[in-house]
Amino acid sequence: MMLHFENDYSEIAHPAVLQRLVETNLVSVSGYGNDPYCESAKERIRTACSCPNADVYFLVGGTQANATVISTMLRQGEGVLAADTGHIADHEAGAVEYTGHKVLTIPHVNGKVTPEALQAYLRAFHTGANTDHMVYPGMLYISHPTEYGTLYTKQELTEISAICREHEIPLFLDGARLGYGLVSDGADVTLQDIAGLCDVFYIGGTKVGALCGEAVVFTRGGTPRRFVSLMKQHGALLAKGRVLGAQFDTLFTDDLYVQISKNAIETARILKAAFSEKGYRFYIDSPSNQMFVVLDNETLHRLEKDVVFSVWGPEDENHTIVRFVTAWSTRMEDVQALIALL
Amino acid sequence: MMLHFENDYSEIAHPAVLQRLVETNLVSVSGYGNDPYCESAKERIRTACSCPNADVYFLVGGTQANATVISTMLRQGEGVLAADTGHIADHEAGAVEYTGHKVLTIPHVNGKVTPEALQAYLRAFHTGANTDHMVYPGMLYISHPTEYGTLYTKQELTEISAICREHEIPLFLDGARLGYGLVSDGADVTLQDIAGLCDVFYIGGTKVGALCGEAVVFTRGGTPRRFVSLMKQHGALLAKGRVLGAQFDTLFTDDLYVQISKNAIETARILKAAFSEKGYRFYIDSPSNQMFVVLDNETLHRLEKDVVFSVWGPEDENHTIVRFVTAWSTRMEDVQALIALL
Amino acid sequence: MMLHFENDYSEIAHPAVLQRLVETNLVSVSGYGNDPYCESAKERIRTACSCPNADVYFLVGGTQANATVISTMLRQGEGVLAADTGHIADHEAGAVEYTGHKVLTIPHVNGKVTPEALQAYLRAFHTGANTDHMVYPGMLYISHPTEYGTLYTKQELTEISAICREHEIPLFLDGARLGYGLVSDGADVTLQDIAGLCDVFYIGGTKVGALCGEAVVFTRGGTPRRFVSLMKQHGALLAKGRVLGAQFDTLFTDDLYVQISKNAIETARILKAAFSEKGYRFYIDSPSNQMFVVLDNETLHRLEKDVVFSVWGPEDENHTIVRFVTAWSTRMEDVQALIALL
Amino acid sequence: MMLHFENDYSEIAHPAVLQRLVETNLVSVSGYGNDPYCESAKERIRTACSCPNADVYFLVGGTQANATVISTMLRQGEGVLAADTGHIADHEAGAVEYTGHKVLTIPHVNGKVTPEALQAYLRAFHTGANTDHMVYPGMLYISHPTEYGTLYTKQELTEISAICREHEIPLFLDGARLGYGLVSDGADVTLQDIAGLCDVFYIGGTKVGALCGEAVVFTRGGTPRRFVSLMKQHGALLAKGRVLGAQFDTLFTDDLYVQISKNAIETARILKAAFSEKGYRFYIDSPSNQMFVVLDNETLHRLEKDVVFSVWGPEDENHTIVRFVTAWSTRMEDVQALIALL
Repeated sequence: MMLHFENDYSEIAHPAVLQRLVETNLVSVSGYGNDPYCESAKERIRTACSCPNADVYFLVGGTQANATVISTMLRQGEGVLAADTGHIADHEAGAVEYTGHKVLTIPHVNGKVTPEALQAYLRAFHTGANTDHMVYPGMLYISHPTEYGTLYTKQELTEISAICREHEIPLFLDGARLGYGLVSDGADVTLQDIAGLCDVFYIGGTKVGALCGEAVVFTRGGTPRRFVSLMKQHGALLAKGRVLGAQFDTLFTDDLYVQISKNAIETARILKAAFSEKGYRFYIDSPSNQMFVVLDNETLHRLEKDVVFSVWGPEDENHTIVRFVTAWSTRMEDVQALIALL
Repeated sequence: MMLHFENDYSEIAHPAVLQRLVETNLVSVSGYGNDPYCESAKERIRTACSCPNADVYFLVGGTQANATVISTMLRQGEGVLAADTGHIADHEAGAVEYTGHKVLTIPHVNGKVTPEALQAYLRAFHTGANTDHMVYPGMLYISHPTEYGTLYTKQELTEISAICREHEIPLFLDGARLGYGLVSDGADVTLQDIAGLCDVFYIGGTKVGALCGEAVVFTRGGTPRRFVSLMKQHGALLAKGRVLGAQFDTLFTDDLYVQISKNAIETARILKAAFSEKGYRFYIDSPSNQMFVVLDNETLHRLEKDVVFSVWGPEDENHTIVRFVTAWSTRMEDVQALIALL
Repeated sequence: MMLHFENDYSEIAHPAVLQRLVETNLVSVSGYGNDPYCESAKERIRTACSCPNADVYFLVGGTQANATVISTMLRQGEGVLAADTGHIADHEAGAVEYTGHKVLTIPHVNGKVTPEALQAYLRAFHTGANTDHMVYPGMLYISHPTEYGTLYTKQELTEISAICREHEIPLFLDGARLGYGLVSDGADVTLQDIAGLCDVFYIGGTKVGALCGEAVVFTRGGTPRRFVSLMKQHGALLAKGRVLGAQFDTLFTDDLYVQISKNAIETARILKAAFSEKGYRFYIDSPSNQMFVVLDNETLHRLEKDVVFSVWGPEDENHTIVRFVTAWSTRMEDVQALIALL
Repeated sequence: MMLHFENDYSEIAHPAVLQRLVETNLVSVSGYGNDPYCESAKERIRTACSCPNADVYFLVGGTQANATVISTMLRQGEGVLAADTGHIADHEAGAVEYTGHKVLTIPHVNGKVTPEALQAYLRAFHTGANTDHMVYPGMLYISHPTEYGTLYTKQELTEISAICREHEIPLFLDGARLGYGLVSDGADVTLQDIAGLCDVFYIGGTKVGALCGEAVVFTRGGTPRRFVSLMKQHGALLAKGRVLGAQFDTLFTDDLYVQISKNAIETARILKAAFSEKGYRFYIDSPSNQMFVVLDNETLHRLEKDVVFSVWGPEDENHTIVRFVTAWSTRMEDVQALIALL
């Protein structure tokens, strides 16, 4: 029996979410999200965001949500800015480029786009010569938590938002792991902050208690025209939209989304303390549920026999960067078993 | 309480399918379809198809499956042939064109492509002048049952397959409602026939007992290179592939897929008899679970108060073509209640 | 020595146009259309159109102009309406679909879209159910003269324009052979009419005296944002834009464009009279420079020995529809030689 | 009267090229490259390349040639590798991404891809984990001369070619300025070397004596199926293909292409000597016809009054990198006039 620390989607769904599907299974409703579960879930999300006029849509997965939002908000000839470590830049198999748009990269600092680098990029473009021959930076994509598990501060997010508004481009926040970001140690950005500062973002379900599903929230009226049709065109309109609606309705009842996220942070905290104590070195310091650790290759091969984790890449000939991830579903007994192996 | 006859995806999933998800919920497995449920389901599907070397992949929905299969099997500059009533031609919001490929239409006969029309199209193209300026017909798409609920005969499918092989283009069968097609009155095409005659097809789950999911089967070694990566690029690679695997594994255990399909045909048979008896006129004669009925507009408005069904379009000023659909989940009591209203 | 009647681009350019290139050959100017020849040509075109605020751009060829204009004026999820005989529907190798947009076809009448059919299509769409699953008709494409050499009347064009404005979609006129349309027998649509009734159109150079080049005219302020950059993205921004500018500047000096077009109509008139006199049957009656004639196959094979013309397709087993075309450059002696062969 | 040193396309065409168009102007030939001029030009190019079986096609411009070749040679899901300074990466307005393919960048060394960096990238990809989620490196794009005017050595090109063949990806060389590269001081790569080591390359006409046109050469049988149709789909098939054919036929008669290139190198040599002598600093050392010079901003503004050149970007607050370019058409008197101003 292997210990699974490779990602935060190794189990299906929080039991309360699955139970909701069982309970509503044979209730007949219309398709494509025109159902009372979706309506209720949207309203709960608007309330949680303090954003009563937001447009909310449910998509199935993260890559799909990213490609659909980005391609429909960009105009032809525009690209999306992202950190060079951004998920869309590296790990979505070119899904954004497949829609005809370039991902324009900015060197990351701890997985983040800094306000300074963003402003420099945009100023250089808008004062440069010959920009007719270049891709227009038409949108900013950030992830929170980032691909390195790091978090934007409220100060950073505020500055980034202001720069985007100065240059009149939308700010899109990928919240695939948003729940974990909200409850991480030292987190000072709330869901309401995000709704207020971003033009569009999504609340990740797949990695935070749902069977599948991401809730895309357009906060300020910039919803692309005929967005449901565009979702259909992307193959991203689920026939049984009610499956997504019922899940998010459950996750946003009694603060379940936030409450179940805490387990990931608590188990990660214990694990990180153990790594430190036993002399392991972190590749990057992350306050959320992803831990990047440098293993000597001997340890790597020893651990691989009992534990599933992700290999990030070689550091040098003898060392490898690996990732351990906790989730809403991580069992403390598995954490202890892993610690015993370190 | 409305009676739902608008489609075959008004409920979530067959209870046995949902139960399987509940039972396996907290078992930790790897993502993206690298899990024992997918492996088992693929093997069961290969067996059911008598196609031991088939490549099987699980996608989330029909439009996504169509766009992904078509765009990855076509080369640049090629289009896909389809009946002008084909789902990809009319009702997928241009999803195929969005991938850069034209849908080349052939006039339908009862929702079907006839072997004669297909051969004529291909012969004309391949003997014509100036075809460098035209889109190359690089694939044939058919649906079975069709969008009108009709079925190909084994003879027709055999002829169509032979024509495709003569012209060296793949034959793709959209089986979104395949289960119903296999058990319809007079159906003479089996799953094994389809696997033997088509290059690729999919077994619809969304409309036949699954929460979501379509099983794409490449039967003859023509699987596009790096297909998993291409699914990812299309936003069609589910993180929790095991959710799809577990469902198809259940549906292909003890012939469940076929057994639950019968309910749709039995309830449709009773309903069709009632329509006929009460003097309603069918727009098209369908042996499967979709019924196309011509209503005078007064009846239309009366029925709409208690029954949900689809409006297909006006026949003339006073008559409208509507569609009633049954499913694995249709309750006989609802059928009787509808009949009482006719 | 074959007689060439296959198209209207068998020679390079009107001598005055080529002479202009020779004269300005070694004058050094900036690239990409930022030169005095383009400026002058644009101004002359605005004047000829009585459209002082029009935006004018020079592209190299017709397919390129069509794909660039259509893809940049449509939003994602929208398609372009066209007659089913429209050049973009059949003879551009899927160039529009390659940009991700569907060509939505309307059955033609003599190669034209009728106002009635257009209105019916748009009304049906906008009052229909389930249009989220369909491609939005976002633009109308017509050609003038059409692919069959026929012409819109001013009345027809006025009605079509009004319908487009009612539904708030742009009207795009492909004028690849516009010069010939302006001087055809019975033509009652002027360049100013077109500029007043269309949102965008192009004045064909390739087929009317230029070496290459089409002048795209946005008449009413709907020019896509950053259009030069979008041309570049399409590979449609000529480095030596001045080559296009100098040609159109010459063609729009002293009414040259219109004057040289007359030769095509005069030679066609004589040829048509000869066809009629000798008992040939026309497939369609065209007032401009394209003639569609039905040949028995014996005559076809006899003529092919001395004359180059286009085969349009079989009419029946023994007859073939062929096309003869005249141009600004057609020599009367060649016309007489062809007549002698009939 | 300004002195033009901004690029190598400020004049139209070498007089002999233009003269050929004048001479053949009214000869009637078929369209789309099916003419004797194209045939003859192709044969001359095959001979010049010592590549008797090469497939040769004529396209209009460089961005168009790059996008058409790259998109038709890549499979879906594949990207093209290029130096981060490569023209396709930065200065083609996202034309490659518009076709759905990512440009994968490798840090340049003097504008070049080094064999070491290429091998490292490909080895890392092919031994890496999780590459299903990444874009497959399916082709290498290099330019020769590069965007910085530098040249590959025969040794480098040989090693790069071997690495591409080891990993079974085509090597594509953008020769927009190829003529200048062949005659630069110290150049040791011949046209025959390029034909032998690359899978596809193009011989630039636009910047080397033609009015427009690039000759794409597939050297080893990898020509995409139905390439003419794919050119049409890209809007890259010129109706009057003969205009391109006649130009290249002239350029490849009596070694004209190479002979006229020498003027650019000779004038550049004199100019570079003058820059050095007068104490100007080069940003990068280039042996071909592009010179990158660092100007203090005072000098920049002074020179701008009389000379047209390109601003590359700021070096620091007080200095700017600019580019001067010579060409086949550069007049020695203009060089002397520029030197007098330095």
